[in-house]
Amino acid sequence: MSWISVELYRKGMVKIGSFKLSSGVESPFYIDLRRLYMHPELAKAITLELIRVVGLSDVDAVVGVATAGIPLAAYVSCLTGKPMAYVRSERKNHGTNSLIEGDVSGLRVLVVDDVSTTGSSILRAIEAVREAGGTPMKAGVIVDREQGARGALARHGVELYWLTTARRIFQDIYMHGLITEAVYRSVIEYLDKYSVVEG
Amino acid sequence: MSWISVELYRKGMVKIGSFKLSSGVESPFYIDLRRLYMHPELAKAITLELIRVVGLSDVDAVVGVATAGIPLAAYVSCLTGKPMAYVRSERKNHGTNSLIEGDVSGLRVLVVDDVSTTGSSILRAIEAVREAGGTPMKAGVIVDREQGARGALARHGVELYWLTTARRIFQDIYMHGLITEAVYRSVIEYLDKYSVVEG
Repeated sequence: MSWISVELYRKGMVKIGSFKLSSGVESPFYIDLRRLYMHPELAKAITLELIRVVGLSDVDAVVGVATAGIPLAAYVSCLTGKPMAYVRSERKNHGTNSLIEGDVSGLRVLVVDDVSTTGSSILRAIEAVREAGGTPMKAGVIVDREQGARGALARHGVELYWLTTARRIFQDIYMHGLITEAVYRSVIEYLDKYSVVEG
Repeated sequence: MSWISVELYRKGMVKIGSFKLSSGVESPFYIDLRRLYMHPELAKAITLELIRVVGLSDVDAVVGVATAGIPLAAYVSCLTGKPMAYVRSERKNHGTNSLIEGDVSGLRVLVVDDVSTTGSSILRAIEAVREAGGTPMKAGVIVDREQGARGALARHGVELYWLTTARRIFQDIYMHGLITEAVYRSVIEYLDKYSVVEG
């Protein structure tokens, strides 16, 4: 699916430079899928591909991880008719008091987010789903950065599905002549250093 | 459109009790539309009705106000093919640094949220759109609580559109025999006290 890599790069969602991640690590690239929905046809094509890869036959509802997973979950819901909920970043202090918005009690749930790194925010969502009486069946992301999410989720009994990886994106855009060899090598070096090899 | 009132009440999105609002005021009801997307057919019907009422012919993109406005904006985008962005609750301190996710520069924008009260969060989104080089044309909500949003937005050159009001919802569900006269009277008394009369 190199069309995904090329489109994400051409539309400015794969940035090259020096970016400080929330972990403190300096990354030579930044994948920002939050602007995906400025391109609704691409958003729709990617969402349909994710639905195909994940498979929804054993899923009753889709839960988005705030904030970037919410429009993705809404697109899945809008395109399939599956109920959608989302997990907030923090608990509210007025009105009602819940981490999850929408009732997933008794439902088999797919958790979605734009990108997975270590898997910590998806795990938080999985815990919130269980706390609310739902059954997290699987998780789906557009890009897995291969920094531990697959293993972390597997250890909690949830399989991660992904459309592509950071490595695959850079291989594709390098093959298409969109980045120089020097940039490609620096990214692969970084990925080799921080990637978690999973069986 | 009393079907909206009845459906919102029947699906537990209009709650009766005593709820402390973020303003500190105790409200005898709480309208929680965040769980709307657990009912995708209703979400779709309401979104299509909002699109009809607002009119999108002079709009290039739709911007959702985080968090509850994001799934609504995504549904609008998915159903119409309009680009979608959203305004975050706070600025990020890593990666890129922006309040708005998605490039609205040069675009005519519809801002959407689930509920309007005083209009302050919609105004914040309108400012973020202008700061990003976009032109806020109008704003659309599912429920206006009639506590000043229309006037506040009008003073900033943006017209507010709404599908229904809190008062209208309670009139409808009272007429349909879904609440007692005592509950109805207490809600109307509260609404009379806190409503802002706008011309």
